[in-house]
Amino acid sequence: VLDDLAPRGSELRQPMQPRTMRLHALDVWVRDAAVLTDAERVRATLRAGALAGGATVLGEEFCVFPNGAVTGVLVLAQSHLSIHTWPEFSLANVDLLSYGELSGVDVLRIVCDGLDAERTSLTTIPRAIG
Amino acid sequence: VLDDLAPRGSELRQPMQPRTMRLHALDVWVRDAAVLTDAERVRATLRAGALAGGATVLGEEFCVFPNGAVTGVLVLAQSHLSIHTWPEFSLANVDLLSYGELSGVDVLRIVCDGLDAERTSLTTIPRAIG
Repeated sequence: VLDDLAPRGSELRQPMQPRTMRLHALDVWVRDAAVLTDAERVRATLRAGALAGGATVLGEEFCVFPNGAVTGVLVLAQSHLSIHTWPEFSLANVDLLSYGELSGVDVLRIVCDGLDAERTSLTTIPRAIG
Repeated sequence: VLDDLAPRGSELRQPMQPRTMRLHALDVWVRDAAVLTDAERVRATLRAGALAGGATVLGEEFCVFPNGAVTGVLVLAQSHLSIHTWPEFSLANVDLLSYGELSGVDVLRIVCDGLDAERTSLTTIPRAIG
């Protein structure tokens, strides 16, 4: 899908831009692997996280694999939020690329809550902007 | 879009899994910022990169902002490849999360070629799997 986003995009993209861009790479081990094959729950969790962090969702793409694993991406006005679940390892890889005012911590906390995380590993790296 | 991928997913996902997962975070400064507002070129470049690295594209989501900036994500059988362009800074943030046999180096080389990169900065971090 190749969309043109009338005046919305620039309103969203410009004012929130104190020139910070960060990549949050989060690995999440969950208590109950069944969560990771519940595609609707995974999708609702990502959307709830984006909302909690102040992000605006512009689009999404989700795929469900035959073993129930879910891959999903939300395209945000503030970049993107993705998930890849590995039910066989009770694991999900979550990536948030974000800039400006978006609260990465809030996004990821809600995602961890939504997946009922038992253990997490987070790496945050600064990214170039400008 | 929430798709069910008949038997394809498991064929693709299982055999290529020597349990390595990597995140490649690439920032690319380009010679000619016009490339970064050419949505079809950006999209074709991502697809060519994915193909060159041996990835299988399962879905995509692209958005074009009013200033011409492009945000796009390819959902891959091997995870995802995303781009966020900043024409005002002659910059693109490219992220590839990949596992198994996929050649991240090949993907990113083709992306850099397609954008006519002048300068790049790459950070690669291992991610949990299993």
